[in-house]
Formats: sequence, structure tokens, C-alpha cells
Amino acid sequence: MRTLLKNGYVINVFTDEIEKTNVLIEDDKIIGVGEYTEDDADVTEDVSGKYVCPGFIDGHIHIESTMLLPSGLASVCVPHGTTSVIADPHEIANVCGVDGIKFMLEASEGIPLGVYIVLPSCVPATPFDESGAVLKAEDLERLYKHERVIGLGEMMNYPGVIHGDVDVHAKLSSAFSKNKVINGHAPLLTGKDLDKYISYGINDDHECSSIAEAKERIKKGQWIMLREGTAAKNLADLLDLFEEPYNRRTILVTDDRHPADLIEEGHIDNIIRTAAANGKNVLTAIRMATIQAAQCMRLQYLGAIAPGYKADVLVLDELDTVKVKDVFKSGKKVVENGKIKEFSPPKIATRLLNKVKSSFKLKVLTKDDFFIKPESQLCRVIEVIPNQILTNEVIRKIDFEKKNGIDTDVDTLKLAVIERHNNTGHIGLGYVTGIGLKDGAIASSVAHDSHNLIVVGANDEDMVIAANRIRELGGGYVAVKNEQIIAEMPLPFGGLMSDLDAFKVSNINKELRDSLYNLGVSDDIDPLMTMAFVSLPVIPIVKMSTYGLIDVGKWQKVSLFV
Amino acid sequence: MRTLLKNGYVINVFTDEIEKTNVLIEDDKIIGVGEYTEDDADVTEDVSGKYVCPGFIDGHIHIESTMLLPSGLASVCVPHGTTSVIADPHEIANVCGVDGIKFMLEASEGIPLGVYIVLPSCVPATPFDESGAVLKAEDLERLYKHERVIGLGEMMNYPGVIHGDVDVHAKLSSAFSKNKVINGHAPLLTGKDLDKYISYGINDDHECSSIAEAKERIKKGQWIMLREGTAAKNLADLLDLFEEPYNRRTILVTDDRHPADLIEEGHIDNIIRTAAANGKNVLTAIRMATIQAAQCMRLQYLGAIAPGYKADVLVLDELDTVKVKDVFKSGKKVVENGKIKEFSPPKIATRLLNKVKSSFKLKVLTKDDFFIKPESQLCRVIEVIPNQILTNEVIRKIDFEKKNGIDTDVDTLKLAVIERHNNTGHIGLGYVTGIGLKDGAIASSVAHDSHNLIVVGANDEDMVIAANRIRELGGGYVAVKNEQIIAEMPLPFGGLMSDLDAFKVSNINKELRDSLYNLGVSDDIDPLMTMAFVSLPVIPIVKMSTYGLIDVGKWQKVSLFV
Repeated sequence: MRTLLKNGYVINVFTDEIEKTNVLIEDDKIIGVGEYTEDDADVTEDVSGKYVCPGFIDGHIHIESTMLLPSGLASVCVPHGTTSVIADPHEIANVCGVDGIKFMLEASEGIPLGVYIVLPSCVPATPFDESGAVLKAEDLERLYKHERVIGLGEMMNYPGVIHGDVDVHAKLSSAFSKNKVINGHAPLLTGKDLDKYISYGINDDHECSSIAEAKERIKKGQWIMLREGTAAKNLADLLDLFEEPYNRRTILVTDDRHPADLIEEGHIDNIIRTAAANGKNVLTAIRMATIQAAQCMRLQYLGAIAPGYKADVLVLDELDTVKVKDVFKSGKKVVENGKIKEFSPPKIATRLLNKVKSSFKLKVLTKDDFFIKPESQLCRVIEVIPNQILTNEVIRKIDFEKKNGIDTDVDTLKLAVIERHNNTGHIGLGYVTGIGLKDGAIASSVAHDSHNLIVVGANDEDMVIAANRIRELGGGYVAVKNEQIIAEMPLPFGGLMSDLDAFKVSNINKELRDSLYNLGVSDDIDPLMTMAFVSLPVIPIVKMSTYGLIDVGKWQKVSLFV
Repeated sequence: MRTLLKNGYVINVFTDEIEKTNVLIEDDKIIGVGEYTEDDADVTEDVSGKYVCPGFIDGHIHIESTMLLPSGLASVCVPHGTTSVIADPHEIANVCGVDGIKFMLEASEGIPLGVYIVLPSCVPATPFDESGAVLKAEDLERLYKHERVIGLGEMMNYPGVIHGDVDVHAKLSSAFSKNKVINGHAPLLTGKDLDKYISYGINDDHECSSIAEAKERIKKGQWIMLREGTAAKNLADLLDLFEEPYNRRTILVTDDRHPADLIEEGHIDNIIRTAAANGKNVLTAIRMATIQAAQCMRLQYLGAIAPGYKADVLVLDELDTVKVKDVFKSGKKVVENGKIKEFSPPKIATRLLNKVKSSFKLKVLTKDDFFIKPESQLCRVIEVIPNQILTNEVIRKIDFEKKNGIDTDVDTLKLAVIERHNNTGHIGLGYVTGIGLKDGAIASSVAHDSHNLIVVGANDEDMVIAANRIRELGGGYVAVKNEQIIAEMPLPFGGLMSDLDAFKVSNINKELRDSLYNLGVSDDIDPLMTMAFVSLPVIPIVKMSTYGLIDVGKWQKVSLFV
């Protein structure tokens, strides 16, 4: 089957030029650019006045953070021109281990989005993370055989790299010896420590938040993944990277991106569009988002309109605004006039589906599980900070007589982090301030990195109901008031993802948020993000784990009581 | 073992910048660039005022054409700053097959030059080439396991690629599926044919002789290997490729390079120096010769001064003239003040050594073997053209009565092409004009692509002696006059290479050439090159094979007699 795209303005990412010419596609491959005519093709599309552009590549994304399955992500990002993503299934791997990764591979097979996988390098992220799985070097080893597994995902354990942790280095060596890409993640690392980290073959970093940081890394041979996601937005600070020579070693990524943003702002197209609106050369930005992303990730014959390249081709109505009209994925038209065509969902092995959809191993909870036995009146309370994942520790005098220490007048709420992978019964209990809930309870199974069950409440009764409802749903978000469920968003796939489409997920998510603000959550707090990071023990100063309070600075468990 | 290069002007090929800083090497790897001091190292070298530059990479060379073994090439090219070459052992493979390739791998093990191998794709080059071996896809398949075998060498059979030759496509598929580089060779191919050729994953071309040709290929996604060798010199015509954006997809190669040129002009340094002398940016040229060559050939962590990169490092006295002072290869100082240090020759398996050193399978020749039985008086005579490998056909009336048709008065010499790999007894006999020999005979075992034994003579007696002497030597060049050997150059390794050093080989070669000119060879003819191409049946118009005359245009054997 041959398709001719006739008379388009074809974008050449090798020369940063636009040429009015024709593109001939055979099956999944571009086979010619030049003087081709209708006679050479079975189907001809007249793209006069339109731009013909390689499909965009997101160099680093956690699909789980979109709350969508890969097919759900495809439906919303392909119409925005993204035809390939490099995904690190770090979240589902923390829940379901190797089977979680296999699930993501099967769930992304044959969809109109190329999903390449880098293997999660840090599962669990820390010894305090009571995750659903532990992934050793030998577990990853076997997965590299899959043709879409192209590397080792972001190596966050930079102390382990620098100080010679044996398991970390086994993972690095295994990837390196197979010529697989090793992605980096080492914010603010600099000088000699950065040299040492990079010297083990760590290819890139997506955590740069300043030009100085990015330039040091480029000079030292790393690729920079300029990130513009939902939580982390670095584009404004890194606009200089669109200039020579730095653009030559920079690609574009989203890392974590919520469905509402995907729908309203877009995906990689949004980064290109914003760069262009800021006066940057749109052809440079397109080059960064296409051929260079492929080079960075060592993907051959992806990211260009040239013979032999995969026929991932966009037809754009406008260049600077990146207005996508049609998308060809592997030579097949999958988006027409901005609308994605229906496609069959991938077939997933029953075993994997069952495993991912029954990730909650947790007994039914009772009020007793949430009871804090007073040992002293002074307690360490976690203080959340608006728009930060960093938390403070404050010492408060707790009145245990009323509501087991909860006091909404001074915004002292109860916080529970409940192990939910292996029914160990481990529950970390304590208090949190800064969220502002006046009533009810919120529960969530999205909690980096081990994704245990987080409950924050203004009373124990609602906390129990919220937690048990999450358990019943197999994961998600729940808001409870007066012992009634007032909003919920099921995330039955690993407690992380929904099989609904992006629009539904986005709408439910908005309703849920509205309910939470109605329960009294402060306007300046994103309650879901706050809960998702309140148990992440790599971010200072104090976090709650399933084992109880963790002083991140001291890197040890501490008592709730002072 | 740690070495500090202190206070140098360090060339950064990622940013095209020079920075005064320090480079720390540990064993074979660069581990840091920055504020390092003597305390970080075992050995410190003060390189104040000098330039610290990545070692150069020759992206495409036939080592056999230097007449040197890999160790001999290393001794002469490493002091010029070349620390890696990508070699296509096409010549030795035509003589010794897979064992020839294995020989080159063993003969390049552990020498102070990184020798990466691309597998010869066209052995034999044509059905008329009676070569020493036939290499099928399955023969090559097994060799890809070797860590220094990185691709499939120049695919010269572009009709086979375009028209779907089964064996050609088996070779392409095998390399492609292993993500190995496939080098191209398709001079003057353009438009749709070029598209089709490239669409099978053919990565590059080194045969471009015009800017238009190069630009078309770059636009279509190929890398251009800008070649400046001994016979083929494209630099002057391709200087524009040093400009943006074309320099981003261009690397530097020599293809075929004689020892005298290596000694007198240099190697890749010569191309950089010449580009700089022509006003091109020397940092651009260095980038093309280092990191880009590595990218083109998919070699990771080669070609830059950055953490994790192989410590192939040059210390230059001067930048624009590329004056090399010291060379570190894999972290070891191998050149000091321009002089290469002695190194142990590689150990080569006796079986391989014997095979390569006994490549002549040929009975002793007699005068009868050179006798042409007259069938008519009009003969097709090959006319050589000065400085071209193209030949003409002229029809001459031959007087067989005197000297079996040889007539030096009209420069009609006898030409014999003698099969020498399998003692088949095949001898192609005929006449040649344009060489100008007045007396004696010349014999050579360097004859592209099948390297049979070529003899040109002014009398049969001297031809016999020359041919038998080559047989005794196991290959080389011989000049005979009055039944005496007046000059010779033994090439006992496959009849192609000597184990002498470049200086000796170059001197012997000069003496040999002087002898040939004394025998009457025209000043405007390079007799050795002429003989090397007089039997290559892919170059028009008429060539001599071991089967007799070949009309290249008709692609068939034709009679000597009209």
C-alpha cells in the first residue's frame, strides 16, 4: 500500500529547511521524497499549502501520571502530533514489579502511538518504601530482549552511582554492555560528583531547572531533556536551550502530564508552540522534538521525513502554532482533521490483567487501625507547603481527648499511610497541617514512589470509609463527608490508571477536586499532588511511611512523639 | 591509574568551544573535566598553552590499500592524531574470505589504534571476479558477534539493492535487524533510484564528488563521508560541506591512502588542516572528525573530551595546523613529542597467519602460459587513460609474427590476468596500450577486487620471470628487465600487505616506481594503480579478467579477436 502526500511544504530536520515536494510512503515506511506522482501511489493526498512534518517524540514520560492506559494516552496525544513516547513505567513497576512492566508493554502493543520502554532503575526508590516489588538487575536483564525495551530509566539513586552501590552498578553495567540508553535524574548535581555520575554512561537529564545547570551537562556530554509537564515546568527558564549550540543536545519531554493539560494545552506540540511564541525558531524546536529525540534515545530511522524512515508523519495546517490536521502512524492515517480514528484496544494476557487489576492486598480496615495511642502530648506534625513537594516538621501540642488528636480549628488533620501490596498490616499514623480540610476525609492510592494507601481526615470514621472504598475500587481517589462518599475516581489498573478516556478522566478529576475544595482544602494547595508526595521519603524534611515518620535529613525513622 | 592533563585549552565538540581547564583520565576512560588537581591523579602532565582534543576517527578506510598491516598503519597514523579507524577489509576478504577478516581482527587487537570492522558486502564484487572466496549473508552473520565488528561495509552492488537481489537483501536485513550500520557506495545515484537505495537503511556514502550530490544525500538522511585519499580526492570540491547545516551530517575519511601520503601529508589531520587553510572553522572540522564520526558509525562514548568517554586524547601544539605533540590511546600515552612508542605486535593464530601468508595457489608458469594463439589480426586492445581507472577499447592490427603480438614501437604490450587463488589455470590474455613500457615486465598481485596476478610486459620471457617471482614472494610487485629482477616489493600477507613499517614500504615503493619509469612507463601514468584497476570489471569500458576480456557495458565476456 502506497500513499503519496502531494505538494506539501516538507520539513527537513537534517538541514532545517522547508521544501515544496512530495512524500511517498509504502506500508510503514517513507520510501521517497521528490518528484513522485499519483502514478507511484495507491492513494494520493493533496497537502498543498500544508506542512509535512515528522511525528513528535516525547523523550521521557511516565504514562501512569496521566492516569490513562497507553491507549487512552494515544487517543489524546496523537491528535497533538506525538507519535512516539519513551515511557518509564516506574509507578506500575513499584506496584506490580516485572508484571507491571509486561502489562505496559502489552497494553501499548499495536496502538497508534509508538511506546518505547526504559526499565525502572529504582524499585523501590528507598529502603523506607514498602513497595509492591523489588526489581534487581537480574529481573531487568530478561526484559531487555523485548524490542521496545530500549534502556534503563532515570537513575535517581545518584548516591548509589557515585558511591558504588553494588545493585545500582549491576543495573548500569547490564544496560551499558547491551548498548542500551541509561537515563539520568540527578537534580542540582554539579562539578566532580556530576562528572562521576555521568562517567558511568548516564546519557541525559530531565531535571535541569536553570540554564547554568543545563549548560554544564551539555558540555560534559549529556543530552538535556527540556521538561514541560504538569507539576514541573522548566520551559520558561530553559528557553535559551533553543539556541545554537545547545539546541543540538536538547530534546523535549513532559515527564508527568495530567489529562486536562493534554486536552487543553497539548503535549510536545505545546512546548514547540510556546518556544515559537517566545521567538525561538520553530524548525529548531521541531528538530529537537523529532530526529534529535531519536538520536538521544538511539532509535534508528525515526524522526525524519526521509527514505527508510518510519512513516510517522504529521500534516500541519499551520507551522508556528503547530496546528495538527492529520497524523500518519507507521504509514496509516490515524488522525483526520484533528480527530483520532477508532482503533482496537490491545489484547492483554488475562494473567497480567488480573494481576494489575487486583493490586490491593489489604484487609478491611476498622476505626482501630486509625487509632493513635498517646505517648506524649508533643508530636511531630508534617506541614505541607503550597506548590511544593517539600514538607516542614512542626512540633504541636496535641489534645488526644477530642477526636484522637484531630483539631480542624488549628488544621491538625490525621494522616495514615497504609501498606497495601502485601497486607503486612503496616500503617504509619500521624498528623499533618496545611491542607485545610474542615470535614470528611480523602484517600488516594497514588503516592510516590511505592503507591501505598494515603488517607487524610478530619475524623476517623470518614477515614475508614474512604480507605475501604479505595480498597474496594482497587485504587483511585475518594472523598468522604459525613460517612458518605461524595466523589470518587476509580483507578483500578494498579491503583494508578483508568481505562476511561482522557476527557472522562479529566472531568471526573475536576469534580473530585471541586469536592475536596468544598471540604475546606486551602485554595493554594493541590490536594492530590500533596497526598501523592507526602510519603516520598527522598524529599525533605519529614515524610510519613508505612513504618511511621521518616526524618529525611537523618535518613531514619523517628517517633511521632517528642 | 589516573592521569591529569593540567591547564590545557580543552576542545569541546558538543559546544564548539575551547575552555582552559583540566582533564582527568582513569585507566582507559575520561572521568572528569574541571577543577581537578595533582592530588586527584597519579601522574600529572602540564599541558599549558597546548590544545586537548579528542582523537580523530577515520570513518572509512581499506587498511590493505596502505600496504601495511594494522600495526604498521597504527605506527604512522597515530602520530597524526588518528586513534580509531573504521576499516572494511574488502581486499583481504576477496583473497582469504572469512579467515582474512578474522586475520584483520586479530592483527588489530591491542594495537594503539582502535580498529572497528565493517564486513565486506560484495565478495566477489561481480560474477566475473574469480576471487579467493565467496561471502554469503550467513558467512557474515557469524562475524557480527565480535565486539569490533560494527556494520556492513560499502554496499557497492546498488543494482542488487534496487532490483531486489536475494543475497544482497539477506545481507542488508541481517545487518539492519542487528542495528548494525550499513555503509553505502553508490556514486552518482540520484532521485528515485537513490531514494530506493537509501530506503533499505543505507547510512552513508563516501563517493560524492560534487556538492549537489552531497546535499541531495544529506537531505535524504544519509551521512556524507568526505573523502581525501590518495587516488580519490574530493576535499577541494566538497569544502562547502564544512558549513552549516551540512557539516552536521558530514564526517572525514580517507578510503584508500598510500604510505608516502600518510608520512608526508598525514591522515585525517591533513583534511582538517587543509579545511582550516581554506578558511573553514577548525573546530567544526574537528567535530566532524570526532564525535560525529562516532555518531555516524553508532559508536558510543567515542570522540569527545567528556566524562565516560574513551580516553583517546590528543595534545596539540597548534590548532589550525593540527600539530600533534602527544597522543593518549585508551588512556595510555602512545605518542610523545610526535614519536610513537614501541608496542608489542598482536598475537595472531598460526592457522590464520599461515592462511594469509600462503594465499598463492598457482603452479609455476612457463612461456607457454603467456602465448596468444592468433585467430585474426584485429584485436581489441585495452587503452589505459592517464589518472583514470576508466579504460577505452581500441581495435588494432596485431603482427603475431614478432614477439607474439607485442610491439613497443606502437606501445602494444601484452597483458595477462592469472587466477591465483585456486590454481584453476584460468589466464586472461590480451594487449594493452597507454602504459609505455619499452622493455621488461611488471607483475602485481594488487588488482581490485579479486586480486589475481596481473602481468604487463614488453616480452614473454620477462613476464614469466616476473609472474613466478610474485608467486615465490606470495604476492607483491616485481619489475624485470633482461630476465633480471630489477626491483621488487614483497607483500606476503594476502599478496596485499607487508609487515615492514610505513617508511620502508614507502621507500621500496618509490624505488619500484622509479624502476618502472626507467623501463619506459609514461610519466602521466601511475603504473601500479593502472595495473590494480585493469581487471576491475565494474569500471567501463573494457577490462581483462581471468576468463579473458570483459565488455563492461555489455556485461559479458568478449573475444580478444574482432
